[in-house]
Amino acid sequence: MAHFGSSVEYGLHCLLWLVGPLAEPASSRDLAELQGVSPSFVAKILPKLEKAGIVRASEGVRGGYRLAAFPSEITVLAVVDAIEGKKPLFDCREIRGRCALFRGRAPAWSTDGVCAIHAVMLRADQSMRNELGHTTVADLAKTVARKAPPSFGGEIRNWLVGRATARAERAPRRS
Amino acid sequence: MAHFGSSVEYGLHCLLWLVGPLAEPASSRDLAELQGVSPSFVAKILPKLEKAGIVRASEGVRGGYRLAAFPSEITVLAVVDAIEGKKPLFDCREIRGRCALFRGRAPAWSTDGVCAIHAVMLRADQSMRNELGHTTVADLAKTVARKAPPSFGGEIRNWLVGRATARAERAPRRS
Repeated sequence: MAHFGSSVEYGLHCLLWLVGPLAEPASSRDLAELQGVSPSFVAKILPKLEKAGIVRASEGVRGGYRLAAFPSEITVLAVVDAIEGKKPLFDCREIRGRCALFRGRAPAWSTDGVCAIHAVMLRADQSMRNELGHTTVADLAKTVARKAPPSFGGEIRNWLVGRATARAERAPRRS
Repeated sequence: MAHFGSSVEYGLHCLLWLVGPLAEPASSRDLAELQGVSPSFVAKILPKLEKAGIVRASEGVRGGYRLAAFPSEITVLAVVDAIEGKKPLFDCREIRGRCALFRGRAPAWSTDGVCAIHAVMLRADQSMRNELGHTTVADLAKTVARKAPPSFGGEIRNWLVGRATARAERAPRRS
């Protein structure tokens, strides 16, 4: 079991399909099926990304999610915080003031400044967040693009367009 | 809710009472009551620290836990790993190979090298671990010692000795 849940992995992968000039709006279901992951699980992640201003949804049979900002402006940290809710590494309960010797009246020195244990945790948390804040969705997409054949972006686009077209054809027409 | 559970906080605080030339062996119950935290909770933490070679237990009414290494050799990282079980920041499920376009046969390029998302998570994890590995129990104890009055170490020792003495007096004597 890891500190970050699998929603973070799925959320970041979803965003990668929405990058690029050819990117089509994609429904939550299409993003899930494109990646071979549970649609009901992905359906819980995208509203969190929308609430954080990372994606934007449009209605209709050809609607779906698009990025709401440039991929170079969306950091991995922003995605993690949107999904995990800015969870700290450590929650200091200030137990240093509860020492039995203080008999319920902690002297000022005992709770002065940040607890030494909390301080190291804050440094570790900041260092992790800095690293996540240095990488953007554009960086991730560049790495994928370097590996994939040049035709891959078009194939993804065609797959998503094909799904939206099939949905539009099945939808009841207004008379 | 933080990534690290409260066991990490209690475990580190317990170790601080075992530092120093005057430190007495302390039972799990004494360490809990000294800090005003639940004895049953602390009783689950100390065996993990013992298993990791951070503390050593001695038997008998005057027995208890001692540090098993110099405080300057016990890093915060070692304590976190002993208690949390070396939990990674992120668990990569390699979903990049499951793309619907691959129809169950992921091409070599799609799973080549470390996934870009996993790579940033590994860097963030390492950066957090480096920070936790740079601080030792000796560093934490020095910060506490700088704030506490000079008599505090002796008072803690007297409290622990008093508890052990009371226990020894209550214990049935061998005839």
